[in-house]
Amino acid sequence: MHSIGIDIGGTKIAGALVSDEGEIITDLREPTPAGDPAAIIDVVIDMIERLRVGTDVVAAGVAAAGFIDAAQSTVYYAPNINWRHEPFRDRLRERIDLDITIDNDANAAGWAEFRFGAARDARDMTMLTIGTGVGGAIVTGDRLLRGGFGAAGELGHLRVVPDGLPCGCGARGCIEQYGSGRALLRMAGEIADAGGIGLQLAAERDRAGALTGEIVGRLIADGDAGAVHALRQLGHWLGQACASLSAVLDPELFVFGGGVSVAGDLLLDPIRDAYLAHLPARGYHPEPRFVVAQLVNDAGVVGAADLARLHATAAG
Amino acid sequence: MHSIGIDIGGTKIAGALVSDEGEIITDLREPTPAGDPAAIIDVVIDMIERLRVGTDVVAAGVAAAGFIDAAQSTVYYAPNINWRHEPFRDRLRERIDLDITIDNDANAAGWAEFRFGAARDARDMTMLTIGTGVGGAIVTGDRLLRGGFGAAGELGHLRVVPDGLPCGCGARGCIEQYGSGRALLRMAGEIADAGGIGLQLAAERDRAGALTGEIVGRLIADGDAGAVHALRQLGHWLGQACASLSAVLDPELFVFGGGVSVAGDLLLDPIRDAYLAHLPARGYHPEPRFVVAQLVNDAGVVGAADLARLHATAAG
Repeated sequence: MHSIGIDIGGTKIAGALVSDEGEIITDLREPTPAGDPAAIIDVVIDMIERLRVGTDVVAAGVAAAGFIDAAQSTVYYAPNINWRHEPFRDRLRERIDLDITIDNDANAAGWAEFRFGAARDARDMTMLTIGTGVGGAIVTGDRLLRGGFGAAGELGHLRVVPDGLPCGCGARGCIEQYGSGRALLRMAGEIADAGGIGLQLAAERDRAGALTGEIVGRLIADGDAGAVHALRQLGHWLGQACASLSAVLDPELFVFGGGVSVAGDLLLDPIRDAYLAHLPARGYHPEPRFVVAQLVNDAGVVGAADLARLHATAAG
Repeated sequence: MHSIGIDIGGTKIAGALVSDEGEIITDLREPTPAGDPAAIIDVVIDMIERLRVGTDVVAAGVAAAGFIDAAQSTVYYAPNINWRHEPFRDRLRERIDLDITIDNDANAAGWAEFRFGAARDARDMTMLTIGTGVGGAIVTGDRLLRGGFGAAGELGHLRVVPDGLPCGCGARGCIEQYGSGRALLRMAGEIADAGGIGLQLAAERDRAGALTGEIVGRLIADGDAGAVHALRQLGHWLGQACASLSAVLDPELFVFGGGVSVAGDLLLDPIRDAYLAHLPARGYHPEPRFVVAQLVNDAGVVGAADLARLHATAAG
């Protein structure tokens, strides 16, 4: 039975009709009418109506960045779309006759990796999505860990440095400030300032006016020493965070998604090194695997569709 | 249907026949033959045989400090009893005809609080046991979180300070070094050295030769400013750790057990203050409750018995 997944991002809204084996049958894409919640709802409704034409659809799942309540109906807080305590599911249900659930976007992406991607053979997975920020998703004993209020898996806000760098969440020292794409640009900028291995980074920065993810990614792929060093610094912080997460969650494997994860082993090797150096009671329990995500672009819609399908069939 | 719980501590082994409502019918206690695994097995077998006389017992659960594998059969590492990769369940089953499971002692205690104690109305609980060290247990969606290798919930080894105080686990900066009973004695000793509000602590230390948990606990109960200040420092570290744990696990409530938790609100108030000061995205999701454990002395045997009963009845 097919279901529909919608992923509301900061710049675009993606939608797909998805089979129960995680295959995308049809997909759609629209720009996000940022800052206009009513227009976002219009786009979502329109996408669902277009995707369900001529097909028997069991449910639709909608994913967005932010805190979703445990009942999967209310958005407590969605920074990208300026929502606060928005009864999103009810707004959608008023206009469409279909079982609808909402989910955090990192949870949806993590669920897709667990069901159909890098973690499909595991029962206990921890995923970190390294994009502009750091998102997270936890699967334990084959279930998505949602927490008592629906906000579990906000792994970007694990604190790694007391009184550390200020974070957008209002706290300080969150791993998001040391392990995200934005942190990578900051570290690359510091290396550029220092000269030496940073000379190429500095030259590209001067040419473009500012370092971007595209520039640093290209230099990493070219093997530039300064850019690779920045990525190693990032990986070391992420590995230290994973050591703490192992003490709490003890996953079989860690999955890394998001734009930075395309660096592959250049990212995974320093993560693994730092993890082993900081692991409590190293040697007394098996080591988890560290892998990159497989469904990078489609994970959000595939996971949202699958979670909605499971929710609808369990309830029915 | 009754089941049996055994809790192997560093100094004593406790055993009990427990009803399916968590009531202790009979209990036993023996000194731990420390450092002699064969003698420990003899004591455990003898206790089970004595507790099952004349009763229909469905299973026995044995709890011990250390890493237990995901199949609940092998002790990877048990610091108190000098075990490494010990096939403990098989050793017991060779000698007794009964369904037997083994569990980490903090998990057993946490499960007892979840089923019959401070968290009996919750579905998502995080428990920290503040004894000599810091133990942990996580229940999420009504299930004990064991992790991929059985070692989840080792919350004492969440890192709170990079390159911080060395920990017995081989890593540095673990919350166990800032939030345990041992840390409380260290903080109380520092306050005693500083004079001022530490004068009473210093006087008691000089009289007894060293500060002990009993002395510091008594001074806390008496309202001594120095001892209460040490407890507040401890609570602030624990509250900061809980802020990170909320980002990961998002529990409805945090339960604090172990000897230090008898301080009640004197411990909970600074924990709550520090939690709120360090919580990511404070104000955008509901606040968890902070409570002390209710089954302090019996939690290990009651939880081990209940976990064994559930395991046996689910498998049968």
